[in-house]
Amino acid sequence: MRKGRTFIISGPSGVGKSTVLKSLLAKRDNVYFSVSATTRAPREGEEDGVHYHFIDVDMFRDWIGKNEFLEYAEYVGNFYGTPKKYVDAAMDAGQDVILDIEVQGAIQVVSKRPDTVRIFIAPPSWGELERRLVERGTDSPEKIQKRLLRAKVEFQTAHTYDYFVINDSVENAVRELDAIMTAEHCKPTERMEIISGQ
Amino acid sequence: MRKGRTFIISGPSGVGKSTVLKSLLAKRDNVYFSVSATTRAPREGEEDGVHYHFIDVDMFRDWIGKNEFLEYAEYVGNFYGTPKKYVDAAMDAGQDVILDIEVQGAIQVVSKRPDTVRIFIAPPSWGELERRLVERGTDSPEKIQKRLLRAKVEFQTAHTYDYFVINDSVENAVRELDAIMTAEHCKPTERMEIISGQ
Repeated sequence: MRKGRTFIISGPSGVGKSTVLKSLLAKRDNVYFSVSATTRAPREGEEDGVHYHFIDVDMFRDWIGKNEFLEYAEYVGNFYGTPKKYVDAAMDAGQDVILDIEVQGAIQVVSKRPDTVRIFIAPPSWGELERRLVERGTDSPEKIQKRLLRAKVEFQTAHTYDYFVINDSVENAVRELDAIMTAEHCKPTERMEIISGQ
Repeated sequence: MRKGRTFIISGPSGVGKSTVLKSLLAKRDNVYFSVSATTRAPREGEEDGVHYHFIDVDMFRDWIGKNEFLEYAEYVGNFYGTPKKYVDAAMDAGQDVILDIEVQGAIQVVSKRPDTVRIFIAPPSWGELERRLVERGTDSPEKIQKRLLRAKVEFQTAHTYDYFVINDSVENAVRELDAIMTAEHCKPTERMEIISGQ
C-alpha cells in the first residue's frame, strides 16, 4: 500500500491559506488535515477533535514529557501542539497529512522527521496581502501592520522551504499544491519497494 | 518571465515512453521536445530537424570540439548527441525542455547542469515489459532478451534519478509527469526573483 507523507503548509495570516486548503482537501482523496491540541478554551461553535483537541495544561505538560508532540508552541498565554498519534495513524492508513503550522513549528517537525515536505504559500505582493487583510475586516489597522511585519519576518526563512506557492488565484495555488503532493509520491525513496522488487 | 527547465526522461525500450511523451506534450504548453543530432543516414520518412538533425561525422567532431553537446554517445557505429543551442534557445524563450535520453547521457547532462530534473519511467514489472516488447512485434526473441537484460542494467541506477514514474497506465504516467513538471517550477530557486522582490 502507498505510504502517506506529511506536508507542512505555512504562510502569513491573510494569504488565503484556509480557502486554498479547503479546496485542496475537496480535490484530493486520502488526506488527513491535522488537528492541533490546545490549552485554549473552546470558542462558540468549536468542537473537540474537529477544530482542536481541547486539553488542559497538565495534560499538555504530560504529552510534552512523553514526547507526544511533533511540534508545540506558546501563543498569547495558550499552548498549541501537533500530536504525533493522529499523524502516525493517518500515515499508517496510507493518508497524506497536512500540517498547517508556522515557520518555527516547521523547523521542529523537520528536525524530527527530515522527510517532511515544506511548502510556503506567499501572496503575489505585500500590497496584495495588506489589501486582503483590510478586506477581511477582522483586524484593526494597527493589528494589520503587526501582521504584515510578522509576515515579512517569516518570509526571510521561506527560501529554506522545499516549495514556494504564490497564491495569485485559489485555482492556481491548489493546482500547484496538488501537483507537489503527487510529485512527492514519485520520489525514488517512496517507491523503493517497487524498485527493489523488480 | 517564467524560466524554462530541463527534464531528462529515461526508461527501458518497450516501457511505452513515446506514447506517454506524446500524450504529455499534448497536455502541456510551452514544452520543447529536444531533437538529437546524429551521423546516421535518414530513414524513409525521417525529416531533418524533426526526427533528427542529420549531420556528417566531420561536423559531429567539430561540435564536440566546440563543446556544443550536452551529451553524446556512439551506438552501433553511429553518433548521437543533444545540441546545446536548441535547448538553450527553448529555455530562454520560457519553454521546458524534454530530453529523451539514456542513463549514460543523463549522467553527462547532470554533470554539466546539476539543476536538470531526472525522471525514470519504469514498467509495472519485468513480466509486463517482456509482454509489451513481444506485443510490439518488432524484435526477435533473442533481441527481446537482450533488451530486457539492458533494461535491468539501467534499472540499477534508477534510484539516482529524482523521480520514478511507473507506467501502469498512460493516463497515470502522464498525470505524474505533468505534476512533476509543475512541482519543479515551485522550487524556491525558481522563484527567487519573486522572493527577493517582495
